[in-house]
Amino acid sequence: MDEPVLLTGAGGQVGRAILEGIGDQYDWRLFFHSQPDEEPEAEYFVGDVTDDEVVTDAMADVGAVVHLAGDPRKTAPWDSVLSNNIDGTQNMYEIAVDHGVEKFVFASSNHAVGAFETDERTPEMYRTHDEFRLDGSEFPRPGNLYGVSKATGEILGRYYHDEYGITVCNIRIGNLTRGHPPIDYERGQAMWLSHRDCAQIHACALEADYEFEIVYGISDNDRKYYSIERAKEVLGYRPMDNSAEWNGDEKVADEN
Amino acid sequence: MDEPVLLTGAGGQVGRAILEGIGDQYDWRLFFHSQPDEEPEAEYFVGDVTDDEVVTDAMADVGAVVHLAGDPRKTAPWDSVLSNNIDGTQNMYEIAVDHGVEKFVFASSNHAVGAFETDERTPEMYRTHDEFRLDGSEFPRPGNLYGVSKATGEILGRYYHDEYGITVCNIRIGNLTRGHPPIDYERGQAMWLSHRDCAQIHACALEADYEFEIVYGISDNDRKYYSIERAKEVLGYRPMDNSAEWNGDEKVADEN
Repeated sequence: MDEPVLLTGAGGQVGRAILEGIGDQYDWRLFFHSQPDEEPEAEYFVGDVTDDEVVTDAMADVGAVVHLAGDPRKTAPWDSVLSNNIDGTQNMYEIAVDHGVEKFVFASSNHAVGAFETDERTPEMYRTHDEFRLDGSEFPRPGNLYGVSKATGEILGRYYHDEYGITVCNIRIGNLTRGHPPIDYERGQAMWLSHRDCAQIHACALEADYEFEIVYGISDNDRKYYSIERAKEVLGYRPMDNSAEWNGDEKVADEN
Repeated sequence: MDEPVLLTGAGGQVGRAILEGIGDQYDWRLFFHSQPDEEPEAEYFVGDVTDDEVVTDAMADVGAVVHLAGDPRKTAPWDSVLSNNIDGTQNMYEIAVDHGVEKFVFASSNHAVGAFETDERTPEMYRTHDEFRLDGSEFPRPGNLYGVSKATGEILGRYYHDEYGITVCNIRIGNLTRGHPPIDYERGQAMWLSHRDCAQIHACALEADYEFEIVYGISDNDRKYYSIERAKEVLGYRPMDNSAEWNGDEKVADEN
């Protein structure tokens, strides 16, 4: 990707993981919701993704968008996700296709399918021996209104791909934590995404050749109930981490 | 269903077909967007489904909701479907679960899956010999922003069912025309829904015992590419019409 890549939500947790990991590999154009504390090294914009004017300015000459911006709270109220996540994502797509942007990577979420974690299936589904898998082809089952907004973002991507041909990758991001997996939290260990795997899967989504994809963004955790086969096959994703390699906050030494 | 059934969009095409067909079978409470020309025989409300106050009044003591209201135009602009269709449907669900409503029937649309009709598949998929079928389990592929809003309505239903236990049936309504199928319009013949079949499938959705369903609301057309097996099996739907029985606007006589 030689042209600039517009990264929204650049100040958030996922945005920081991406910039730390692959910040020097792209000509980034950053989009922040509020003025960042430190002056960014890349060109940047501050505004709301529902604001046509600033998004239009930010989209000029962009080759790809990585759209992370939105209310990230799983308890976010409807009015906030309706505006920030649903309306904001539609605005990003509309202006992206207007500008002939080639590729759009959308930060979806495990919460788009959170209600598959039924009382009958949990906690067994979080454990290594359990063989239940979601593969990205399923009809969404959001666990909260935030998840509804993320599933809607995926469907907007489906529409803008089918109607305008823009390449779309939806990454259902798991549990991103820095350094080590969540402790004493089986669900979080099942869907852990390390910072370096987070950066890598976004680079894969920017580089690979595909049409429309929904993939799970997690590390290669023994406990996983999200399949990463599609991400490996289509995007060339090669996760380097696995929550099973950690015991508490200590990495388990490889005995060999 | 002994308790009142709240029907939104009561003045629209689908609402009129339902009231003509099964108007005397339920204690209807009607919800209109604007004052109807003729005084309705049933109790009624006039307002916007995004308005908490009038929806709350209308929802009192209701046993089931048939939610048809929304901007029905396939070319409706985003701002309209975002408010009328997406926000309005969320408001209806929120107030329905607040009031302990048992069942929610949502008028989804063929446009939620319109982009399955690719250049490669059409017009063959509209023809009797073609075996392509959609069955309601597929990830939506909307053909327009109206279709995005209907797919989002389905996902809202999935969430409110999973979270609150309300029974939900989404009916992806085909091409509803009065009297006879569309003429010289293969797609419309493939997804024709006669008025009496429209009324019947809604009665089935109100009477049957199920949890969460997505079904296709069409007559038993020879040309169909939407499966009606699920509607027959789970709802007990027994369509009486078939667009193939019509030739132009004349009904084809049964030779036997």
